Amino acid sequence: MRRFNDLADFSREEIQDLIALAGRLDQHPEPRALEGKVLSLLFLSPSLRTLSSFQAAMIRLGGGAFVISPDMSIHGLESRYGVVMDGSAAEHMREAIPVIASYGDAMGVRAFAERRDLAHDIADKDFQALTALIDKPWINMESAIDHPCQSLADWKTLDDMGIPANKGKFVLSWAYHPKALPLAVPSATIHMAAKRGMDVVHLRPPGFELPPAIMARARKAAAESGGSVRETTDRREAMEGAHVIYAKSYSSTRHYGDKLGDQALREELVGNWCVDEPWFANARPDCKFMHCLPVRRGVVVADRILDGPRSIVIPEARNRMVVQMAVVYRMMKG
Amino acid sequence: MRRFNDLADFSREEIQDLIALAGRLDQHPEPRALEGKVLSLLFLSPSLRTLSSFQAAMIRLGGGAFVISPDMSIHGLESRYGVVMDGSAAEHMREAIPVIASYGDAMGVRAFAERRDLAHDIADKDFQALTALIDKPWINMESAIDHPCQSLADWKTLDDMGIPANKGKFVLSWAYHPKALPLAVPSATIHMAAKRGMDVVHLRPPGFELPPAIMARARKAAAESGGSVRETTDRREAMEGAHVIYAKSYSSTRHYGDKLGDQALREELVGNWCVDEPWFANARPDCKFMHCLPVRRGVVVADRILDGPRSIVIPEARNRMVVQMAVVYRMMKG
Amino acid sequence: MRRFNDLADFSREEIQDLIALAGRLDQHPEPRALEGKVLSLLFLSPSLRTLSSFQAAMIRLGGGAFVISPDMSIHGLESRYGVVMDGSAAEHMREAIPVIASYGDAMGVRAFAERRDLAHDIADKDFQALTALIDKPWINMESAIDHPCQSLADWKTLDDMGIPANKGKFVLSWAYHPKALPLAVPSATIHMAAKRGMDVVHLRPPGFELPPAIMARARKAAAESGGSVRETTDRREAMEGAHVIYAKSYSSTRHYGDKLGDQALREELVGNWCVDEPWFANARPDCKFMHCLPVRRGVVVADRILDGPRSIVIPEARNRMVVQMAVVYRMMKG
Repeated sequence: MRRFNDLADFSREEIQDLIALAGRLDQHPEPRALEGKVLSLLFLSPSLRTLSSFQAAMIRLGGGAFVISPDMSIHGLESRYGVVMDGSAAEHMREAIPVIASYGDAMGVRAFAERRDLAHDIADKDFQALTALIDKPWINMESAIDHPCQSLADWKTLDDMGIPANKGKFVLSWAYHPKALPLAVPSATIHMAAKRGMDVVHLRPPGFELPPAIMARARKAAAESGGSVRETTDRREAMEGAHVIYAKSYSSTRHYGDKLGDQALREELVGNWCVDEPWFANARPDCKFMHCLPVRRGVVVADRILDGPRSIVIPEARNRMVVQMAVVYRMMKG
Repeated sequence: MRRFNDLADFSREEIQDLIALAGRLDQHPEPRALEGKVLSLLFLSPSLRTLSSFQAAMIRLGGGAFVISPDMSIHGLESRYGVVMDGSAAEHMREAIPVIASYGDAMGVRAFAERRDLAHDIADKDFQALTALIDKPWINMESAIDHPCQSLADWKTLDDMGIPANKGKFVLSWAYHPKALPLAVPSATIHMAAKRGMDVVHLRPPGFELPPAIMARARKAAAESGGSVRETTDRREAMEGAHVIYAKSYSSTRHYGDKLGDQALREELVGNWCVDEPWFANARPDCKFMHCLPVRRGVVVADRILDGPRSIVIPEARNRMVVQMAVVYRMMKG
Repeated sequence: MRRFNDLADFSREEIQDLIALAGRLDQHPEPRALEGKVLSLLFLSPSLRTLSSFQAAMIRLGGGAFVISPDMSIHGLESRYGVVMDGSAAEHMREAIPVIASYGDAMGVRAFAERRDLAHDIADKDFQALTALIDKPWINMESAIDHPCQSLADWKTLDDMGIPANKGKFVLSWAYHPKALPLAVPSATIHMAAKRGMDVVHLRPPGFELPPAIMARARKAAAESGGSVRETTDRREAMEGAHVIYAKSYSSTRHYGDKLGDQALREELVGNWCVDEPWFANARPDCKFMHCLPVRRGVVVADRILDGPRSIVIPEARNRMVVQMAVVYRMMKG
């Protein structure tokens, strides 16, 4: 495997094979599989789960990782091309990235969206420019528009919980949050659930529709897998018979990059988009709650949901490490 | 071993067994003992020795560790329960801790006291709330009131130096410091020396008595081990025939959480509570000096003591790594 | 090997042997060679390559490293001796360094020059005071006046590129930079090239001569190796028939520690000391460009040089990891 950038690059069989490998490595550890192997990790955006779980994955397989992030006492990094670097940045990505890559057998990169121009972010232009500088296998640890490690972990979590692939009903719901967050997780999630063959309902208030390109991609995946994708603003209709609700806040796509416009729209929704028990009235009794974390309690979801039997957010987060073992194993060992 | 939170949870025989294992692993390395094993380290308070020595201990045994601390570019962590998280904190401890724990085979946590309410800190309420969220073996890397890794290292250091357990005289002395520091080390230390069977004298100026609950715990340990515990303000009497003096500054317990009251009392003592050679006039000629570090030179102790033959602070600090090898070995291998 | 502080401490044969070992470990990995071994890394100055490449080197050989740097949430570190530590620093180097060293089998230290007094920095007094506290094998990861890991990597890179040792022409050129940078890299580099037996030309504007002690040391190395060292301000003469140009900015040695004086001299040179294609007019057609990185694009060197066939800065940076594998191997395994 040369890159792990997008679940869409893999067939369902390849994904199922990766998940099977992940489960095997979790149940039957191979602590020497990657001895002497190095994973380079570059975090241009904050992290807790990804930072921890990739290091843990490498140690479990007998190798190791090193971390570079801009909050370390390193020199500022420039990413624009062709500029005269007489300001505060002392190093360019065009040197930093190949150098960091050269020390590892594979490299992970995280760089969130700038959220200025929607088309630019959907095309993942900045991330493509960064990763084009890597001549090793590489992993998308969350870009402007994708988060394949999260999606692979989510797929495995759905499997682990016995939630059906075909005829399983997956609700992806917008949730309130005080800030405008990136589109990476909802975009990756709707595609993942569709590709898994589920009946996907995207529940969101007006102004928080996902971009047409993202919806088209999900519909295409559903068409191939026997699933379906539809959108609604009607919570009751969305939750009817649901197996699982996946909550995620993100910026308004109508006011993308327009902080004040987004804020105005968002503030109208305070208090009405925090997932709580009444949402589940007509869902399946054992309907589960998923979230990629971090999650704001009492804002995105009520404490009683997170602390009750519906929540599977902790095994979901643990699966990050488990599936990433499979990804680095395939990259470094084959 | 499911938790390493307090030396009081272990019998003297269990402690001696851990120290023997530590010595064996130091003399006869087992670089594959913990291959593929991961220690999760969460630092909610600053560290140098603990941060370094746990990582080194894991590498020496063939495993590894990862570190999460709030000075990294992670999301702020909320610890209060039941709040609406619409402020700066983007993640709750109730998610962060189980997730971090899920990536490791054991977990270490450091969280200093808030020093607002003495009874609250003595009961270690905040730390208990944090560690209750861990479903793996866990290690107290210093809480509001305890520091068992330091105490185990100190016990081994006393053994290494040939200082007798019974009939050995151990002076725990308050020392000056410009700031009000936590009670964890003096509380753990007085209990450790008493449990080892030593004749313990607690030397401190008025206002810096240790809390009655801490003293009672130490006296109970002494009663079981054949040691003794007493308190004094008389330096000459305290140092008479001493084998070792252990210096530690900490906040006034009469003015706990009252910064100005503590400061007023503290300032009267400047210049008179810095351990120096005259203190040793009537001690044993080979009386040793211990300190958990970091230590302020010329404030807590004179340069000539730290740089002379009495000081055993460096082997004491090295023993942190050595005993922690034994703790993680017992937790992960049995 | 007890210390790796200066290439001058090693014979040419010893250096060639280290480089051969480095090449062998790169081609034929030994992922268990240093199992259970720990490298302690103390960064008192910023780093990207050194930070990454030492961690990667240890993992590749089956051991590991831990990192302490002052941007972590550790206590401030005091280095002056004999002071009363009642200010912000809570720990002295005299404790911190032996403790950090005690957790490892070897230790690396980075501490840049203060750039106040030239003679003081040339004698590397501060670094010697720090490293005198280490009772383990240790590595200079860049001091006030030396950077032996960079020089060893550079030597190997010259070998890898087939640039001749004797009769190879090596141009060390000053370059413009908005800040006054340390002398460590130019001082180490001119000595390395001379010791390798090359014909070394030091090209620099008036005021940026290297100190006489540094030049004398390089000339002595050249005399022993059959190389030569000369200085010029004439770019055309310098570049005539050159095999390689190594660019590096550094502070004026005439105005050392005098920020305004340095700045005045430096500003006159803006725009005229950025390495670009015209510099190579009379060099060998395949003349290469080297730099230790980080490098400011459009300031020190033009984009088209860094992005063209002359640049060997990425393999040069990768060689940091490769030669450091040999250094730690010799220190920990023999």
